[in-house]
Amino acid sequence: MIDYIFDIIRQIRFVEIIEFIGTFAFAISGVRGAATKKCDWFGAFVLGFVTAVGGGTFRDLLLGVTPFWMMNSIYVWCTLSSLLFYIFLREHLNHLNRFFFWSDSIGLGLFVVVGAEKAMILGYDSWVIVTMGTITAVLGGVIRDILLNKVPLIFKREIYASPCIVGGIFFVTLQFFNLNLPLISAITIGIVTFLRYVAVKWDLQIPKLKSEKSN
Amino acid sequence: MIDYIFDIIRQIRFVEIIEFIGTFAFAISGVRGAATKKCDWFGAFVLGFVTAVGGGTFRDLLLGVTPFWMMNSIYVWCTLSSLLFYIFLREHLNHLNRFFFWSDSIGLGLFVVVGAEKAMILGYDSWVIVTMGTITAVLGGVIRDILLNKVPLIFKREIYASPCIVGGIFFVTLQFFNLNLPLISAITIGIVTFLRYVAVKWDLQIPKLKSEKSN
Amino acid sequence: MIDYIFDIIRQIRFVEIIEFIGTFAFAISGVRGAATKKCDWFGAFVLGFVTAVGGGTFRDLLLGVTPFWMMNSIYVWCTLSSLLFYIFLREHLNHLNRFFFWSDSIGLGLFVVVGAEKAMILGYDSWVIVTMGTITAVLGGVIRDILLNKVPLIFKREIYASPCIVGGIFFVTLQFFNLNLPLISAITIGIVTFLRYVAVKWDLQIPKLKSEKSN
Repeated sequence: MIDYIFDIIRQIRFVEIIEFIGTFAFAISGVRGAATKKCDWFGAFVLGFVTAVGGGTFRDLLLGVTPFWMMNSIYVWCTLSSLLFYIFLREHLNHLNRFFFWSDSIGLGLFVVVGAEKAMILGYDSWVIVTMGTITAVLGGVIRDILLNKVPLIFKREIYASPCIVGGIFFVTLQFFNLNLPLISAITIGIVTFLRYVAVKWDLQIPKLKSEKSN
Repeated sequence: MIDYIFDIIRQIRFVEIIEFIGTFAFAISGVRGAATKKCDWFGAFVLGFVTAVGGGTFRDLLLGVTPFWMMNSIYVWCTLSSLLFYIFLREHLNHLNRFFFWSDSIGLGLFVVVGAEKAMILGYDSWVIVTMGTITAVLGGVIRDILLNKVPLIFKREIYASPCIVGGIFFVTLQFFNLNLPLISAITIGIVTFLRYVAVKWDLQIPKLKSEKSN
Repeated sequence: MIDYIFDIIRQIRFVEIIEFIGTFAFAISGVRGAATKKCDWFGAFVLGFVTAVGGGTFRDLLLGVTPFWMMNSIYVWCTLSSLLFYIFLREHLNHLNRFFFWSDSIGLGLFVVVGAEKAMILGYDSWVIVTMGTITAVLGGVIRDILLNKVPLIFKREIYASPCIVGGIFFVTLQFFNLNLPLISAITIGIVTFLRYVAVKWDLQIPKLKSEKSN
């Protein structure tokens, strides 16, 4: 019994730790983007926050539920830590690129799981579940790019959304097997992270759209 | 009785065919926009989808109902067809400009009707009904332009929103006469399409705003 | 009794007058922005409207209630007046800069109060109340800048959001004292307006984020 409770605590804590790290990595990417446009600390905070929670917020609006971050101030504190982290340690960020890449990738996978699970509980079709997972994971970055006045990166060099879509499809498919949710979630996160690693390592790209004149 | 049912089927199908053609035309305009910014296939799909369903999605969020495309996967398939259409037939698209113009215009009128009707059923004021019809029809194009990092076209050369507003006003006004909804809808679509044709043919424009210094 | 009713009437009217002036000032800033990008009258109207109601609309979507402007056409008329005002009096606008600054600042304070109060009534946490007040006040300007294809001004030279945040914190804190809502609202508006005046007068700025290479 005690062991069982311990297990739950450990599980919850593990997911929360991943979520914190993922949120932190997403927020850092917003803060770094803000720095390229000479934003001030306030703008950097907003950009970090929007990058971290923007996808989940839009998902919750589409699903008609209260945006998740309005029920828990942890996301504000997480963004604030990432801002302070940047301000005090920005000269050392380059040495941490590998760490950020892995945090960001694992966070990506976790956000797919969180979004897909939320849509699944509400009883939506499979393709909506995959879509909500993907929106949760990638839309924050799209809003960040819009605020920074750029064509969103993922529309041009897409090493970002496809792993989420594939991960979401796995998440939905694995429901038909006799697996428990934590295992399915772990597999999904693993697949998203792995695919993103592969895509970046071999510089895989989706074909570019040719213009109307070229043959 | 049989005839009556047949009539309904024919009617539904007719509206659905128009909606498919309209959605296709809107999606194609998103895909063509994506091509101008060298987006990849994924980005083109997203841009096509957002152009096609963005207006209705925002309308549904404002009205507090579940976004329409989450209940029916037809819009995804329609966007996918438009993407494949572009990829395989892009060299011939110029010969189809006339066809796209008419599809887009009729779609515009239909989207006004769909949006206005939805707001009317929910019991909103006349001016909200007109606004919802117009938002349904034009906001997808606005979001497309924001994503492509341009000042939205309809704010500068407005041959697009005014026909929708006029069509919406007709839609609301005709409710006071003893007409059935399909007829009112057909008249509205006709007016929007006709006004758009006239606006493009004679290059009608709304006066530009003068800057503060010029006299 | 009569006096009491008179008091209420006077109070309501006063708030409504401030709200009209604030909405007008916000709409004018959208219209002036539209003029810099050579938009037409329709685009200017939309930009004015979005600047005036965009913040409150997003707040209402987050809170899950019907956007406020869909229940009262006054905001449409107010935007229309600001457009006509610009069209006919644009050469004289420079002489009115001081008036617009004060209208805009007082409006900013009022919008903080309106947004914070709405979140408070719905029972949200203090930090959500402050956030909703700030979003109500500043998001319209952010959307205006996105539509005009610029990095939002408040992310770079932030004399705008901080006074709202401080005002929101006062609004929440003052609830714990034995004061009535109109007084708390008046104090909040006063603080926001004063802080903004101070920030502009002494050109106060939040520190800029340094880039990763500079020391």
